[in-house]
Amino acid sequence: MDGTMIIGGERLLGAQGSVQSVAAATGEPLEPAFGTASTDDVARACALAEEAFDSFRETTPTERAAFLDTIADEVLAIGDPLIERVMLESGLPRGRLEGERGRTMGQLRMFANVLREGSWRGVRIDPAQPDRAPAPRPDLRLRQIPVGPVAVFGASNFPLAFSVAGGDTASALAAGCPVVVKAHRAHLGTSALVAEAIERARVKCGLHPGVFSLIIGEGNSVGTALVADPNIKAVGFTGSRGGGTALMRTAAARPEPIPVYAEMSSINPVLLFPAALAERGEAIAKGFAASLTLGSGQFCTNPGLVMAIDSPALDAFLDAAEKALSVIPATTMLTPGIHSAYSEGVAKHGAAGARLVGQGLAPTGTYEGHAHIFETAAATFLSTPALHEEIFGPAALVVRCADVAEMKAVLAHIEGQLTIALHIADGDHAAARELLPLLERKAGRLLANGFGTGVEVGHAMVHGGPFPATSDPRTTSVGSLAIERFLRPVSYQDIPDDILPPDLQEANPLGLPRRIDGYMA
Amino acid sequence: MDGTMIIGGERLLGAQGSVQSVAAATGEPLEPAFGTASTDDVARACALAEEAFDSFRETTPTERAAFLDTIADEVLAIGDPLIERVMLESGLPRGRLEGERGRTMGQLRMFANVLREGSWRGVRIDPAQPDRAPAPRPDLRLRQIPVGPVAVFGASNFPLAFSVAGGDTASALAAGCPVVVKAHRAHLGTSALVAEAIERARVKCGLHPGVFSLIIGEGNSVGTALVADPNIKAVGFTGSRGGGTALMRTAAARPEPIPVYAEMSSINPVLLFPAALAERGEAIAKGFAASLTLGSGQFCTNPGLVMAIDSPALDAFLDAAEKALSVIPATTMLTPGIHSAYSEGVAKHGAAGARLVGQGLAPTGTYEGHAHIFETAAATFLSTPALHEEIFGPAALVVRCADVAEMKAVLAHIEGQLTIALHIADGDHAAARELLPLLERKAGRLLANGFGTGVEVGHAMVHGGPFPATSDPRTTSVGSLAIERFLRPVSYQDIPDDILPPDLQEANPLGLPRRIDGYMA
Repeated sequence: MDGTMIIGGERLLGAQGSVQSVAAATGEPLEPAFGTASTDDVARACALAEEAFDSFRETTPTERAAFLDTIADEVLAIGDPLIERVMLESGLPRGRLEGERGRTMGQLRMFANVLREGSWRGVRIDPAQPDRAPAPRPDLRLRQIPVGPVAVFGASNFPLAFSVAGGDTASALAAGCPVVVKAHRAHLGTSALVAEAIERARVKCGLHPGVFSLIIGEGNSVGTALVADPNIKAVGFTGSRGGGTALMRTAAARPEPIPVYAEMSSINPVLLFPAALAERGEAIAKGFAASLTLGSGQFCTNPGLVMAIDSPALDAFLDAAEKALSVIPATTMLTPGIHSAYSEGVAKHGAAGARLVGQGLAPTGTYEGHAHIFETAAATFLSTPALHEEIFGPAALVVRCADVAEMKAVLAHIEGQLTIALHIADGDHAAARELLPLLERKAGRLLANGFGTGVEVGHAMVHGGPFPATSDPRTTSVGSLAIERFLRPVSYQDIPDDILPPDLQEANPLGLPRRIDGYMA
Repeated sequence: MDGTMIIGGERLLGAQGSVQSVAAATGEPLEPAFGTASTDDVARACALAEEAFDSFRETTPTERAAFLDTIADEVLAIGDPLIERVMLESGLPRGRLEGERGRTMGQLRMFANVLREGSWRGVRIDPAQPDRAPAPRPDLRLRQIPVGPVAVFGASNFPLAFSVAGGDTASALAAGCPVVVKAHRAHLGTSALVAEAIERARVKCGLHPGVFSLIIGEGNSVGTALVADPNIKAVGFTGSRGGGTALMRTAAARPEPIPVYAEMSSINPVLLFPAALAERGEAIAKGFAASLTLGSGQFCTNPGLVMAIDSPALDAFLDAAEKALSVIPATTMLTPGIHSAYSEGVAKHGAAGARLVGQGLAPTGTYEGHAHIFETAAATFLSTPALHEEIFGPAALVVRCADVAEMKAVLAHIEGQLTIALHIADGDHAAARELLPLLERKAGRLLANGFGTGVEVGHAMVHGGPFPATSDPRTTSVGSLAIERFLRPVSYQDIPDDILPPDLQEANPLGLPRRIDGYMA
């Protein structure tokens, strides 16, 4: 680790300036200093990505699968130095980070399997009907092709799984898109280590150097230049609402607008139904306190808003939550900046008239997040926009609703979400069923009797949802469906078999699943 | 036909002003005068669409299929009065419009069949693994749900197939989205007749009145209000680049940005390869002249740009094209405004230094389009942006390239297209294969030995392409894949079976195709 970026296979010490990440626990600057990119450096990375695109997308799915598997192997091969660097930069504990590393490798391997299975290619064939009247039908064949080079912006809260070799990179590379990553300021060392692993995998697999670049930059100018670069055809982003919407504006203002897949802001409502609250309110309270404080509350899917109907069972739930929270230690937050924004958010909730229900153990380190649970009445919530804002960290607001109608009013009022969790017992099923159509419109994932903080990587996962949870609710950033973000359909009409790509040739040499005349063959 | 709109089942004579369409051939105003909508009228139509959404999307696929089939029946049942009105308003001939009516019905019936087949629901199930270590895997089920009410803007050039009951409306209704159509100014009577047919079908099928509304408006304010309305969740548009990009800006500037599917501008390059030109240049020239003048050249897929390598065969082709064109009569254009824009475009090409190759027969009516073929050298083309602009109508520009390298340079230079056509003989296959990766990046559909002007409605069709051909190259506006524009995925985690929608219930009561653990079951 020497402070360099990787631009199309070459190590380059950026000369625009320099930047260091800091130890999350202490705020101390960490070695090395990284040189930051000029806009020319950004343009070169993007031009090299474009140069690599045709050869990369024409690798076979098996070859790209091998590349993804090799990246996973190389990330694991870094071993403990990677885990130690992430711990230092993020303040997250070893167990969590070892788990996250496993998840990151799991994502890469899942997309390798998706490539081998072949449905991602979306092959459709409508065979010619030369005798059709009044006009013959041509031969039509459709496949999905990659959109082109993709820019990826990693997240602070998943320095491995949503960063340099995270889900956006894995799905873009799987689709056949070269990737230019802008390293997250909060984990530059982690980013450099993982980028080196990707670069080793690229060399081992004999791929064009432009397939992957890592750019270091401070401030917004490098990111803006990256999204504005004409060679970039799509953007993956995980971060704040302000950051995401700024990139959306940049992308929409280009001469050729491009899609931005930004995963941004969510307070993840938790609905406590009456029978569940009566039957097992205490257990739910314990689960809630644990989910709220997991990773210092720094999950996109952190349960920031609880809604329940006013009742003695709700009071008991709050007592139990207060008790459960009171013994949970504070933990270091990801960055001093996040810590300070969190503390301000908590103060605002108090100032906006929310009542303090309970707190976690007081912090012992400078940058530890002090967990808070507040409560307020539904009417207050509805009339107080300040209470709707996400507080990134271990703080939640319980909204006391008079009845189901008021709970519906609160739900109708809130913005789009990543998740909504329902706690239900048998007696609640009818009410939950009735609410489902509204909940579907508000979130990308609905879950029962749990919390959203575990995001399973699979085929049926949606980590997405209506704005402002994401910029594009038609997609997900976790799970195998994420590959579709980086594909577009092309139709081939009457193209002779020897000119067609193998995907579409009559003999189906790659053995791809195909839809013939609208039905899976 | 009494000049009213249909807003959520009620006929309303707009009081904002009034507007009449005109006879395409003469410019004479046609009865009746239509009242135009206020922004309150627009808001009410959108609010009713939102009100209808939940009941409409919960109809079974079979019920929605019956609705689409009934719309097709009702459009046909209007009979000749519909054809006669479209002829009057559009200037298009009877045969073409009867064919277009058949196509419109075919689209509705295709989406009915798509609904019955069931893959559109995109069901994915990752079954629970309670014994997985270190953590159990939850039960995850995914389906696609409709995005919400959709605004549709019809096209002037397909008053049936891309208008009130056209592909955008059919695919949005199929998805389960209520539709608010803004009638095209050029065919208000056609729009009203078709809207009445949809309304009769809605009543017959017992659906909520908000499922369909037709708005009449003049100028941009009604359209802007429709796209800006918070109840609208997606937009389908076919028309000019200026109109489409204006709607894109309105949609992006909303508090909740929404997708716009705009099909806009394309010059549809035709590449003439040397062997094909030598073998059958004359036949290609005849086909070209016929395709260029079909429907007075007013197709999105009209062949506006021809590229070929300089050779005696190209000279022979141009002679043959001149000869073929010289006997083709001029025909009435869709509107006086389109006629005048066309005439200006032709004059600009002349002024920009393109040489006139040939003309069609001189117009005999005021608003007939006079067909033109121009030619220019590749170097002139590359340095003259005015020559890159679409001329909507029967005009084409032949670009004479010195060699394959220069042809590639021209291709690399042009913007995104709906179609690119290749004319090839056996000796051209190697060259065509080499060019394919570039062509795929430039267009949504590649075709051999034909012209793009016939757009087959099927499962493997892409009527789409990179900007500015469309606003969103990830989709198509023709063919069964178009339904995906109006869907978004939702994941259900550990939701009890009796709360799940039938689509996802374990017993699969609707018999939907399902992907289990990543593989089709």
